[in-house]
Amino acid sequence: MSAGLFDLSGELLDRTDDVIDITDGPEHVLAAVGRAFHQLLERRSLSNNSLWGIAVGLPGPVEFVTGCSVSPPDMPGWDGYPVRTYFSDLYATPVWVDNDVNLLALGELRAGLARGAENVIYVKIGTGIGAGIIAGERIHRGAQGSAGEIGHIAVPTADDTICQCGNRGCLGALASGSALARDGARAAESGESHYLASRLKENGSVSGEDVAAGAQCGDRTCLQLLQRFGHCVGDVMASLVNFFNPSLILIGTGVTGTGDLLLASVREAVYARSLPLATRNLQIRLASLGDEAGLRGGAAMVMDELFCPERLARWLPAGDPTGQPDLVAS
Amino acid sequence: MSAGLFDLSGELLDRTDDVIDITDGPEHVLAAVGRAFHQLLERRSLSNNSLWGIAVGLPGPVEFVTGCSVSPPDMPGWDGYPVRTYFSDLYATPVWVDNDVNLLALGELRAGLARGAENVIYVKIGTGIGAGIIAGERIHRGAQGSAGEIGHIAVPTADDTICQCGNRGCLGALASGSALARDGARAAESGESHYLASRLKENGSVSGEDVAAGAQCGDRTCLQLLQRFGHCVGDVMASLVNFFNPSLILIGTGVTGTGDLLLASVREAVYARSLPLATRNLQIRLASLGDEAGLRGGAAMVMDELFCPERLARWLPAGDPTGQPDLVAS
Repeated sequence: MSAGLFDLSGELLDRTDDVIDITDGPEHVLAAVGRAFHQLLERRSLSNNSLWGIAVGLPGPVEFVTGCSVSPPDMPGWDGYPVRTYFSDLYATPVWVDNDVNLLALGELRAGLARGAENVIYVKIGTGIGAGIIAGERIHRGAQGSAGEIGHIAVPTADDTICQCGNRGCLGALASGSALARDGARAAESGESHYLASRLKENGSVSGEDVAAGAQCGDRTCLQLLQRFGHCVGDVMASLVNFFNPSLILIGTGVTGTGDLLLASVREAVYARSLPLATRNLQIRLASLGDEAGLRGGAAMVMDELFCPERLARWLPAGDPTGQPDLVAS
Repeated sequence: MSAGLFDLSGELLDRTDDVIDITDGPEHVLAAVGRAFHQLLERRSLSNNSLWGIAVGLPGPVEFVTGCSVSPPDMPGWDGYPVRTYFSDLYATPVWVDNDVNLLALGELRAGLARGAENVIYVKIGTGIGAGIIAGERIHRGAQGSAGEIGHIAVPTADDTICQCGNRGCLGALASGSALARDGARAAESGESHYLASRLKENGSVSGEDVAAGAQCGDRTCLQLLQRFGHCVGDVMASLVNFFNPSLILIGTGVTGTGDLLLASVREAVYARSLPLATRNLQIRLASLGDEAGLRGGAAMVMDELFCPERLARWLPAGDPTGQPDLVAS
């Protein structure tokens, strides 16, 4: 988990990072986030009411209007949890809650590679896989806030791998950090990959990062696993390119070392399957800002919402807003 | 081809219909459209310069900013053709050109079943298959104006049918009016369907409408063909529902008689494969306005563009706009 403090010009003044487990439930996790905010304010001797606004990004669908988490998979206790109220009670300031990949996409739109683009798909690959969508320069959240949940899209060229959801050939079951680790472990156990077998012997387990490192050392099985991974992502993106016609796809991978190899395989599959017109000016690139994009996206969202014409009308009659401290937490 | 005359309250005053072949090339086709406009004006004794604006819908990708057709498949002579200039020279009035399914979607949004919806996918099934996308109450055209070109999306459960584009399992090669006619003809020739065999003997060919009629008479092969058709559409829509999270999918089918049976199969496939959260409040319905939606969408587009704040500023200083005739052609 990362937390950042911004001024109203969008400059990141300070950040702090911590390892938390989202499955510990909302009380534990939000308390840790609150401690991070407290730490950021304390370092600058600021009080709780110095903030103009707060943005929170969650790894699951969010009902943006109410600021509640909605039916997130693998996050016990979070369904319907009022994340906005939790923080607005603590800080007496406006709070917005959104899906974390939406914030990554918005961060790249405002401060990264997506600057100036109108239609963007940001694909985040971590333990699972998800997308953030920019349509006409705005975050597209969909009717239930679940837009971008691409982990259970069926891969057209999939094998029979069964997903946690019970269906076969889901993208997330074939192309995610945990899928790569699972396939790597199999290749280690069967002895198909010497590299992974030695990793397994050393560490007792195989990670997605091990497969990526093996591929970079030229291990053929690791290369094939990473290629299949990229082709699965690319096969699904090819469909989405035909449907959505973005000008830019950004891949943000949290599996260290997968970057360029993954990118090449994704591109190969997209260019093989999408309409030539839709790929004529399409760029497919690695995201530029890493997880800082999420913080920057949060700050941008707070400022967009605070200073949208409807809300601005509410602020202005109250006097000069510059008389207040100019800080945003994300 | 349909052409309509509207007043600025959005009322359809008159319409005229003609059969044209888009493959005759832009000069022939646009001349026919021009004759239709002329006829509509003449019936009311109006001159060419009585129009506030004109909308034109084309069955292929359109670069909205320039009003040019872009790389449309199976439309020789249309690539890059300046459709806007053709009509603005004739009528000395603003002209907007868009993909025809976008106009169908906009028509349903303003005057049909999609009223009040923010995120809508309109699927048009005719000879081919295409989609119009409404994101946040606005038409989503994509970077090259090719958004909604779903005909070449790979169907996850597809067989090995080869598409005109060279790829296998494209939606349009499995689920379109022409695919249904092709499969129907095969079932007639093999004698698998007695109903279709007798249609073939009578008419010398089998159409998609014949298959639909056979299904309604209880012919098992026809029923299966129509079901497979709907499942292919539904399998692709299931992916798009996960990605886009619409509140409404509208199916506009030009293959007479396919309506309810097709709808049932599409629904079955979407509910089997999409995330429960994304389908919680999702409606999948048959479009309500038929091809009138395209005319209404065109009129709405002209009025949206004429009266958007940027353009309105240009009109107002010129004096009372109500002094001009209040007509829109679409």
